[in-house]
Amino acid sequence: MSMKKIRVGITGYGNLGKGVEYALENVDDMELVGVFSRRSPDQVNVRTGVPVYSMQQAEQMKEQIDVMIVCGGSANDLPVQTAQLAAHFNLVDSFDTHAKIPEHFANVDEISTKSGKVSIISAGWDPGMFSLNRLYAQAILPNGADYTFWGPGVSQGHSDAVRRIEGVVNAKQYTIPSEEALNRVRSGEQPQLTVREKHTRDCYVVAEEGADLERIAHEIKSMPNYFAEYETTVHFISKEEFEANHMGISHGGFVFRSGTTGENQKHKHIIEYRLTLDSNPEFTAGVLVACARAAYRMNQEGMRGCKTLFDIAPAYLHPQTAEELRKTLL
Amino acid sequence: MSMKKIRVGITGYGNLGKGVEYALENVDDMELVGVFSRRSPDQVNVRTGVPVYSMQQAEQMKEQIDVMIVCGGSANDLPVQTAQLAAHFNLVDSFDTHAKIPEHFANVDEISTKSGKVSIISAGWDPGMFSLNRLYAQAILPNGADYTFWGPGVSQGHSDAVRRIEGVVNAKQYTIPSEEALNRVRSGEQPQLTVREKHTRDCYVVAEEGADLERIAHEIKSMPNYFAEYETTVHFISKEEFEANHMGISHGGFVFRSGTTGENQKHKHIIEYRLTLDSNPEFTAGVLVACARAAYRMNQEGMRGCKTLFDIAPAYLHPQTAEELRKTLL
Repeated sequence: MSMKKIRVGITGYGNLGKGVEYALENVDDMELVGVFSRRSPDQVNVRTGVPVYSMQQAEQMKEQIDVMIVCGGSANDLPVQTAQLAAHFNLVDSFDTHAKIPEHFANVDEISTKSGKVSIISAGWDPGMFSLNRLYAQAILPNGADYTFWGPGVSQGHSDAVRRIEGVVNAKQYTIPSEEALNRVRSGEQPQLTVREKHTRDCYVVAEEGADLERIAHEIKSMPNYFAEYETTVHFISKEEFEANHMGISHGGFVFRSGTTGENQKHKHIIEYRLTLDSNPEFTAGVLVACARAAYRMNQEGMRGCKTLFDIAPAYLHPQTAEELRKTLL
Repeated sequence: MSMKKIRVGITGYGNLGKGVEYALENVDDMELVGVFSRRSPDQVNVRTGVPVYSMQQAEQMKEQIDVMIVCGGSANDLPVQTAQLAAHFNLVDSFDTHAKIPEHFANVDEISTKSGKVSIISAGWDPGMFSLNRLYAQAILPNGADYTFWGPGVSQGHSDAVRRIEGVVNAKQYTIPSEEALNRVRSGEQPQLTVREKHTRDCYVVAEEGADLERIAHEIKSMPNYFAEYETTVHFISKEEFEANHMGISHGGFVFRSGTTGENQKHKHIIEYRLTLDSNPEFTAGVLVACARAAYRMNQEGMRGCKTLFDIAPAYLHPQTAEELRKTLL
């Protein structure tokens, strides 16, 4: 194997960018060359001390960077940043607005094809590894049903909604897969389940001193769209307990395929893929780094244009050679 | 999408070949053209009534078949049959002798490259989907440990060993993953576990009338290599109960990656992939059929040579177009 390391740039230094910086320390074949930020470089304090550049300087660095990992938000950053950077770099992003993926793909594909680079979009776990598992499982068991459960994990949007209630100091909302629903799926019965039937909601709330707890609990449980349709539990806890136990960013979930085969479809099969993640952004960063390796290698082989995990032969993601993989992992 | 169906041949009409015949009935884009057998064609009774040919007739059918699914045994059939057929056909096999995969790959790769066809070997669940999950999970969480558990499921070799004991009429041995070991892995502690610590063995035995059950149980539990090193349970049951409940070919297992990320590796992540299969050969057949679709499509795009699931961009396995997949599954 070549000793030359793949030279990586990170665009955006929030939770995800920091996760990528950590993830690169767990691999031997890649090195971080620089961080690019919209903020003024002297205001960005990068843990590992690599140079910080402004976004405007990115183009000048195109000979020094083999692949850029774009760590912005899907709503506003990525549609712009990924498109700009695709004109000069192989890159990876974690664009996760499901409904807008086809549009983002078409846009980035045109730019990357023209620049002769490879862009991998929507890498992460959903979209990402969950999507991949849905694809593989449908291909193997075409006669069946899919189930995706999210959690146990933190929902930022629901936590924010609770925090807006009068008398609430702080709050965290956990989405919990229903054990009953999980067991029905695992039994192979192929139930029809709505999102509401698959999940319950647990709220941990720090209230102002003297606040009417009953009113707060009622306001949460009756909030339309967010909680009213779900089985919701509200726990009031102290500020200290909140800070000790509820500052995490854990997440995870399940993807199931329940399918049947054979004589009169009498044989049931369950494929279950489960993620239990202490840190949502750090796990996503792991997917991004593996995809960065793939983007660079695919481009080295002459490929260009926009790709997703659906288009990447798995061997490109792993540091070992195809020969080693067949010997050790197959 | 083109309305032309992919024309498939099956070589070998045992449990796996019959599973492929069923699996093809669950897809719209492929059709079974014929079955090839070492037996005389008039002795092979194919359920769906497609024509049966002798192995010698295969070459003459090469214009009528887009991809051949080779359903022989790994010990003796596949090294010969896959090599012969690769000279004329795109093909898929489920070669599962892990230690000999590199040799089989090299042999088939040379022939397929010369014939301009695509061969996919070692498709199934282990090797196959389990291998794929090991690869993806290692690539995402490079700092961690792998765990593969087999079962609950039937072990043919262990069942045979029990059947050879004097006084035993029939027997079935189930390999059971240890709940304690599973829970230790799920906790993220990354234990060191031997194969023995990960599995227990359950035997269901029909004994001859008047046989010394204590001696049989002792002979089983003390059998070196097979049982002595494991926690083994022996259940004596009637012939009727055996035939009612223990004729199945269920199997399954678990692949875990337990990895850490972030500051001082403080965040734990668990990736769990689990299969629960009523019919081992019918599930394997599902993987083979998806790979047959991929082999044909990859060859249509000009690829040639030997591949494994590691080399197949996932979208090739699924009947929908890449555009549809991005829209519906990503």
